[in-house]
Amino acid sequence: MLKYQQIASEIELYIEKHQMQQGEKLPVLETLIKEFNTSKSTIIKALDLLEKKGLIFQVRGSGIFVRRKKRKNYINLLSNQGFQKDLEKFHLSSEVLELEIRKPTEAVAQNLHIDMDQDVYYVKRVRYIEEETLCLEESYYNKAVVPYLNKEIVTDSIFKYIEDGLGLKVGFSDMYMQIGKLTDQEASYLKLKNGEPKLTMESIFYLTNGTAFDYSKLTYNYNQSQFYILGTGI
Amino acid sequence: MLKYQQIASEIELYIEKHQMQQGEKLPVLETLIKEFNTSKSTIIKALDLLEKKGLIFQVRGSGIFVRRKKRKNYINLLSNQGFQKDLEKFHLSSEVLELEIRKPTEAVAQNLHIDMDQDVYYVKRVRYIEEETLCLEESYYNKAVVPYLNKEIVTDSIFKYIEDGLGLKVGFSDMYMQIGKLTDQEASYLKLKNGEPKLTMESIFYLTNGTAFDYSKLTYNYNQSQFYILGTGI
Repeated sequence: MLKYQQIASEIELYIEKHQMQQGEKLPVLETLIKEFNTSKSTIIKALDLLEKKGLIFQVRGSGIFVRRKKRKNYINLLSNQGFQKDLEKFHLSSEVLELEIRKPTEAVAQNLHIDMDQDVYYVKRVRYIEEETLCLEESYYNKAVVPYLNKEIVTDSIFKYIEDGLGLKVGFSDMYMQIGKLTDQEASYLKLKNGEPKLTMESIFYLTNGTAFDYSKLTYNYNQSQFYILGTGI
Repeated sequence: MLKYQQIASEIELYIEKHQMQQGEKLPVLETLIKEFNTSKSTIIKALDLLEKKGLIFQVRGSGIFVRRKKRKNYINLLSNQGFQKDLEKFHLSSEVLELEIRKPTEAVAQNLHIDMDQDVYYVKRVRYIEEETLCLEESYYNKAVVPYLNKEIVTDSIFKYIEDGLGLKVGFSDMYMQIGKLTDQEASYLKLKNGEPKLTMESIFYLTNGTAFDYSKLTYNYNQSQFYILGTGI
């Protein structure tokens, strides 16, 4: 973790610990520079990161203010850190239905920017929140980037393994959402009825160097589909 | 528009005009500094803005690369600029159903951080794409911030009026999404059937100074609910 990231997470903890509310003012720049005994540019980078995460907003000539999401039990749509962090009070689990090495379909190859003769890991899971189904997940990992997966890893957090186990850095993602009706098969995995609402979320995850490594398609149980975004205004 | 925003939009136009593809490299920092005849810090701010918008990614020690969304006709979920820009090839229109000054309900007052005796503008519209319904929209504007609206303004773009007409700056937003089934009334506005899927999107929009001015609830026609997000990895 770089210095500015360290400082950002200390400020985040401070906001959390003091239960600061939306609109409450943080110390001015000069105070933060002194407090963290660091350079102005490092503090500015830390604040920019917090702003990007939707945790503060900065008003020119006026100060730095706290942002808070106001509803509980919503999932952060923009976080790469999985469900764990947002739903930490709930018991989350995964049931692994399939795990195998395959050749990609044309769509998978295109989304991962690979050739059709390259190998991918195919992982199919149902994810549960408490005793309810949360989503059906089908993921394709570029085997040239993620050379090994086993049942234990995919039962736990794959991203944690990729970052901690393989030492890779997850960068950014493209996400595509659609609303529709459940097919027979999807409904049976989610313990719902054919034709009921679904949210389909396709994501392509990239390493920081721009290599696509994961193409995932998640089909959500509409009863559990509550998401939030702290948008930064672009 | 500030200098770095000007430069960012020139780079954006350049990418568009040259139809640059995902992964294509932009000139190095030094070249951009010379080309735009500006300071290093201004170029860095311009690049950070483009990264935040999901248009480029920067790889330390390697360069600046283009990001492209790969699917057409999806709506940018994170843009405050309305549907116009994403769906510019389509004919979009609004039908105004109601426009009046009201006292807020408790939920509206809470979301706008105002008292229950303050006035709000209530706007109810159905939005169309080509001849199809796109969404039912109910919006509440804090009248202390947006003192005047009329039918002509709300038939066109309210945000354009707020920025250009009132000279206010739209900052950030909180968004909450849920999937569910259409009620009878919603279905009739959207020309769909009771019980069919819906996406409900609630947004609270803030000025750059942190004042909430708009609380909106949009109910989408699931046939038109295609969204994308260029996530920046947080």
